[in-house]
Amino acid sequence: MARIVQKYGGTSVGDVERIKNVAQRIKAFRAEGHELVVVVSARAGVTNELIARAHALCANPSEREMDQLLAIGEQETIALTAMALQGVGVDAVSYTGAQAGIFTDTVHTKAKIKTIDARPLEEDLRAGKVIIVAGFQGINEEGQITTLGRGGSDLTAIALAAAIKADKCEIYTDVDGIYTADPRVVKNATKLPEISYDELLELASSGSKVMQSRSVEFAKKYRVVFEVRSSFNQNPGTIVKEEVAYMEKVAVRGVAVDKDQAKVVVSHLPDKPGSAAKVFRALADATVIVDMIVQNEGRGGVANLTFTVPLTDKARAQRALEPVVLALGGGEVAVHEGIAKLSVVGVGMKTHSGVAATLFQALADKGINIELISTSEIKISVIIASTQADEAARVAHAAFGLG
Amino acid sequence: MARIVQKYGGTSVGDVERIKNVAQRIKAFRAEGHELVVVVSARAGVTNELIARAHALCANPSEREMDQLLAIGEQETIALTAMALQGVGVDAVSYTGAQAGIFTDTVHTKAKIKTIDARPLEEDLRAGKVIIVAGFQGINEEGQITTLGRGGSDLTAIALAAAIKADKCEIYTDVDGIYTADPRVVKNATKLPEISYDELLELASSGSKVMQSRSVEFAKKYRVVFEVRSSFNQNPGTIVKEEVAYMEKVAVRGVAVDKDQAKVVVSHLPDKPGSAAKVFRALADATVIVDMIVQNEGRGGVANLTFTVPLTDKARAQRALEPVVLALGGGEVAVHEGIAKLSVVGVGMKTHSGVAATLFQALADKGINIELISTSEIKISVIIASTQADEAARVAHAAFGLG
Repeated sequence: MARIVQKYGGTSVGDVERIKNVAQRIKAFRAEGHELVVVVSARAGVTNELIARAHALCANPSEREMDQLLAIGEQETIALTAMALQGVGVDAVSYTGAQAGIFTDTVHTKAKIKTIDARPLEEDLRAGKVIIVAGFQGINEEGQITTLGRGGSDLTAIALAAAIKADKCEIYTDVDGIYTADPRVVKNATKLPEISYDELLELASSGSKVMQSRSVEFAKKYRVVFEVRSSFNQNPGTIVKEEVAYMEKVAVRGVAVDKDQAKVVVSHLPDKPGSAAKVFRALADATVIVDMIVQNEGRGGVANLTFTVPLTDKARAQRALEPVVLALGGGEVAVHEGIAKLSVVGVGMKTHSGVAATLFQALADKGINIELISTSEIKISVIIASTQADEAARVAHAAFGLG
Repeated sequence: MARIVQKYGGTSVGDVERIKNVAQRIKAFRAEGHELVVVVSARAGVTNELIARAHALCANPSEREMDQLLAIGEQETIALTAMALQGVGVDAVSYTGAQAGIFTDTVHTKAKIKTIDARPLEEDLRAGKVIIVAGFQGINEEGQITTLGRGGSDLTAIALAAAIKADKCEIYTDVDGIYTADPRVVKNATKLPEISYDELLELASSGSKVMQSRSVEFAKKYRVVFEVRSSFNQNPGTIVKEEVAYMEKVAVRGVAVDKDQAKVVVSHLPDKPGSAAKVFRALADATVIVDMIVQNEGRGGVANLTFTVPLTDKARAQRALEPVVLALGGGEVAVHEGIAKLSVVGVGMKTHSGVAATLFQALADKGINIELISTSEIKISVIIASTQADEAARVAHAAFGLG
């Protein structure tokens, strides 16, 4: 008998039939004698419907009200999932974030979990009940409902697993696990049986949509081992943990592509100390997240500064930059779409030399031009034309023998 | 400047456009400098949708889960209404039942309000905010969400009005107020400017659908004067209070028809002490609400017992009765549909004689047969054929000069 936390995402509980399917899965686990805490998301589409209704009433509603509104998505699925379990003879009880004792800070729409008081939940667990907890939500000290932002339900599951010292944490989603590349793009992509937190973090920040970085960071911090697997089949998924034992030393664990990026070039910027700092301070103040940054050596007293930003922040970045660049004494701001970031990730890189060379050569062989390069200890990212991104993913995948 | 509690029902906040309309009305009140606490129901239809989804998953879900589920209907409208107000420049903040400090007992799906801790709400009121409170819901001592049952949002409004010592309580609905009869049936029915709690209670229990009895009882107990009026126009409504000053003494205040009743006749019941008690104990145990009861004198050692039950409880009543009647030594149980209850109500009856005679004569003149009669201090009810109910309402309305 184990104590298991499971999380089912919005597509897994998307309608009445799928909720019944999840209930059957949970029933089977319960029949094996496990203690179960199940975190569920809102039904797929519900959150977007609610946001649309909100914006039809107010262009800029307060974030407190947005949280009051969005929290009902998960509150619906917890009650329905508990009922579905009761319908198949399993004793189940639902908990909102507040009822599960998930206390957060007061930052609405992207709150951070501060503490979890799992005592009421432990009591129901001991009474043999299956506990269904609303993902994505918590409560602050003033009794206001908060939400945790994108990927919040994964975070709820991992935080609960840490709080109740679960033996296992399973993140059920609509994919089988973590792949060496996106299987829709790279046909012979393979599922990884295991991956380290650090590798998944680099993949997550590189456009792999399976998990948000903050959930993986939380799991790494609290040493929560979790498995990413599908709710639509019984296939084993990918286990995410600190240290991964390799059958053989591999340099690269996976390839990721992120097409939701824009490239910003600030050219002819007067090359004096503090210029770059002012530029990035302005972007930070505008809450634009900057990714790859390259500054080339100044020539003739001017420098070029190139970086990428999320495509959605493109206009905001441009508005934030123009007055700063003017104040710095001139220069031009140009924003380019049509780019993509290709990343290869693997802890093996630390000990394998030549990974960068292999990647660059493979891309060059196919005539794929590299616009920017950025590296970390376990990742190499390059900016290329988005039209060549899929081909580049296949080329890199093959070059590192991942198929 | 007054402190006002307003309640808007499900049709008043039925969609985005209607919520905008409500926001404009609230804005106009706020512009007059009033302190406003607004109670809203779920959008019309939402509660039934949720119930249907629940029953698709479980024939008999726990009432705790039903409450978790149904509470989201109001939580949606409070957030949307607050946003709509923000959209027109009014500072508004939403409160769930729990956040508004509405503590109830633990009886899920029909909880009773025990206390209201209005301190957080008072604080926001003093800060000049419009407060939007979820009707129909509360929280029990264990932190579980409870709902108050049918008409629960009216109850929330009246209880809050008592708790915060409001100067006015306005119940906005889709009708203009309380009428002397149903205007769809009796064309010249007129709106009453005022009505007493007792009269409205008798009308409510007699099939007038405007308010549930328990809200009126609560208002009577805590002396909360309230007004029933329409959210779709600016017409004055009907004020409900303890003592109503009359321009002239009238005997009858209104006429109500209830077609949702069935008549049960237990015939040839052995006429011995305790028979009736056993019959009604069995019905009470089956939670069947019995209305008009008539027992005629026993002849030849057997008696007939006649009473009415809600149409929805018909089958349950029959199932509950048959074994009891058998155990009592025989008799027959017959359930008749196709009946209606006509009631005339008025505190003036206490001092006016001949009201019953006037009613019976008026019905007889039109050939309307009376099957059962029951009277209280301020009400006379008769059971007639449901096919004659509308005509009977018009006849009674005219006989007492209500047009």
